[in-house]
Amino acid sequence: MRIKDIREATASISSEIQNAYVNFSQMTVSVIAVESDVVRDGRPVTGYGICSNGRYAQGGILRERLIPRLEAAGEGELLTDDGSNFDPRKVRNVMLANEKPGGHGDRSVAAGALDMAIWDLVAKIAEQPLWRLLSDRYNDGKHDERVMVYPGGGYYYPGKGLEKLQDEMRGYRDQGYKVVKMKIGAVPLTEDLPRIEAVADLVGGNDLAVDANGRFDLTTALAYGDAMAPFDLFWFEEPGDPLDFQLNAELAARYPGALATGENLFSLQDARNLIRHGGMRPDRDWIQVDPALSYGLTEYLDIIEMIESLGWSRRRLIPHGGHQLALAMAAGLQLGGSESYPGVFQPYGGFADDTVIVDGMAEPGEHLGIGMEFKGAMFAEIRKLVG
Amino acid sequence: MRIKDIREATASISSEIQNAYVNFSQMTVSVIAVESDVVRDGRPVTGYGICSNGRYAQGGILRERLIPRLEAAGEGELLTDDGSNFDPRKVRNVMLANEKPGGHGDRSVAAGALDMAIWDLVAKIAEQPLWRLLSDRYNDGKHDERVMVYPGGGYYYPGKGLEKLQDEMRGYRDQGYKVVKMKIGAVPLTEDLPRIEAVADLVGGNDLAVDANGRFDLTTALAYGDAMAPFDLFWFEEPGDPLDFQLNAELAARYPGALATGENLFSLQDARNLIRHGGMRPDRDWIQVDPALSYGLTEYLDIIEMIESLGWSRRRLIPHGGHQLALAMAAGLQLGGSESYPGVFQPYGGFADDTVIVDGMAEPGEHLGIGMEFKGAMFAEIRKLVG
Repeated sequence: MRIKDIREATASISSEIQNAYVNFSQMTVSVIAVESDVVRDGRPVTGYGICSNGRYAQGGILRERLIPRLEAAGEGELLTDDGSNFDPRKVRNVMLANEKPGGHGDRSVAAGALDMAIWDLVAKIAEQPLWRLLSDRYNDGKHDERVMVYPGGGYYYPGKGLEKLQDEMRGYRDQGYKVVKMKIGAVPLTEDLPRIEAVADLVGGNDLAVDANGRFDLTTALAYGDAMAPFDLFWFEEPGDPLDFQLNAELAARYPGALATGENLFSLQDARNLIRHGGMRPDRDWIQVDPALSYGLTEYLDIIEMIESLGWSRRRLIPHGGHQLALAMAAGLQLGGSESYPGVFQPYGGFADDTVIVDGMAEPGEHLGIGMEFKGAMFAEIRKLVG
Repeated sequence: MRIKDIREATASISSEIQNAYVNFSQMTVSVIAVESDVVRDGRPVTGYGICSNGRYAQGGILRERLIPRLEAAGEGELLTDDGSNFDPRKVRNVMLANEKPGGHGDRSVAAGALDMAIWDLVAKIAEQPLWRLLSDRYNDGKHDERVMVYPGGGYYYPGKGLEKLQDEMRGYRDQGYKVVKMKIGAVPLTEDLPRIEAVADLVGGNDLAVDANGRFDLTTALAYGDAMAPFDLFWFEEPGDPLDFQLNAELAARYPGALATGENLFSLQDARNLIRHGGMRPDRDWIQVDPALSYGLTEYLDIIEMIESLGWSRRRLIPHGGHQLALAMAAGLQLGGSESYPGVFQPYGGFADDTVIVDGMAEPGEHLGIGMEFKGAMFAEIRKLVG
């Protein structure tokens, strides 16, 4: 068993939306196909992967470092000991050989996309949906039938007023979502508060999460916290710079509601520092590390072990990214939930087309592997780009 | 005044050396030329930059994100308010527009190389050596005539025994160095101790720094610390994972000698976390952030301000990387010193050819800009690659 070909391309997910920190007019993602020499129904079994949104495609690192290392791997070096499938941890060790520790940024995104394709391939070779394979291998056969999901929405865009914001949220409710999320921090608090009130009036503060995308200094974070506390929000996300653990700890000491952060932490080490130094409270806060930006599911399994060793429940993990991988992981590993992208980052954002959302919960399907093939518009583009 | 052309290429610095973590057989660096429309002596004034060793060339991020943003900059957007020169901070803000916070890895390396070329250009347009420009602008006209330098050496390579290791160190002494450095951690403590003893016998423990390149877990770091304490070493470098601040703090609480770390921290935020959470002692420890891997001198100016605001002296800063930029910065900003590469990472490692080392100190020259042109073998290759 061997990898016959690894194909990689850059896809645009350009849009007019913006959060408090960046606009997405030039945003791209990497798309990857890993073709094996295993043949089923006359066709080679192929795994597909993408990186999550927000950190750009990583063609350079993929083409110059990670993919050549896999192509140069020796006979059997990437396989389980019994040779019956690829071993994602061995693949990871090969693709990241001679990479220094630290500096978990773009490299982690490149590895995340490639790791996704490997897991898709592994589950397809095992003829299982990924969530079931994860449940069998890493969760004593347990899994969740339904996964809490919330739409990552409420972006700022030109000409969007309170009414359009409410319309957007009403739309999510109509689609079956319960908890909704909106961006804050791109305008002053006095302008943001009416936005928050408008959505809280519609859905209830308990079901509203707000996301500052790392924009606030401590003073501003505390001011927003004080102003938002009465809403008893679902969570207050990424108040300050993702690496300013001290700011997070000071806010956590004062803000009574739930905090959520981690989409811009890209490794076990960075996530561990959040828990060690960030003042996060295991009874209420949420950790949002995105496997497709952070060396993949393989690293994420280590992150689960790490947080449990530090006294946290894996139910506090809700991955960023709104992709099929996160949904499969949340179901098979019994995490806290998954972000969802019903409207943004198309065609790459969101779950398989047949995913039904009821009462804010999604069921993972019985698709083989991750189920990339069952998100039609995305897969059509993937096929065009990487075959 | 405007940028006429930005050229970028990947150069090999492949070698047989290895540290405790990686081998350098496939190592590359990015080489950059930024050509302005300013003409002197009939030729366009051009700034040159390279990234430091260890984190690979960053052609993808440069070509796809950073360089296009500079090329798209509006009239005057990159200039000082009076239009008399380029403004490195404005350049930085343009090249990093729409980049999310956090994830300081490869992006910081790409930006570091580009920022180096910008500062070289700025100093050349100002007709000054960079160290003098830095002294005038940011250090009240003060500077150091001589800078403490030490050779980053003592690597493992095939067939290298104790005698060759001693020969190497004797060679550095003959070249005028005082403090020398060697790698540890690629073999067990029982094999490393005789290596350390052999070099300490030759140069004295006080003048020997050892570098574990982030390899140790806490138990191993403490065991090495206990075994090495009697040597009263110059420093014990990067004992554990660069982001394991807790390990560093626990070691610092027990190991009486100096610690040094930071070459794998690539941003102000990460360096601040080292100081906040890493137990580093301002009276003895050293911080080694490398500007050419960490968004450049522009970010480093902010790092100096940050550490001083936290009660640290800039004399505790000794940049990793052994390049002319670090030497100029150490002289003009009065840092603690600079690494030096008399033997490795050629032709990119090391200072200008006419740099004389006496009593472990180097004088920055009167070369215009950073002085890349005065390291002959390197500049010949740079000219070949990027004109």
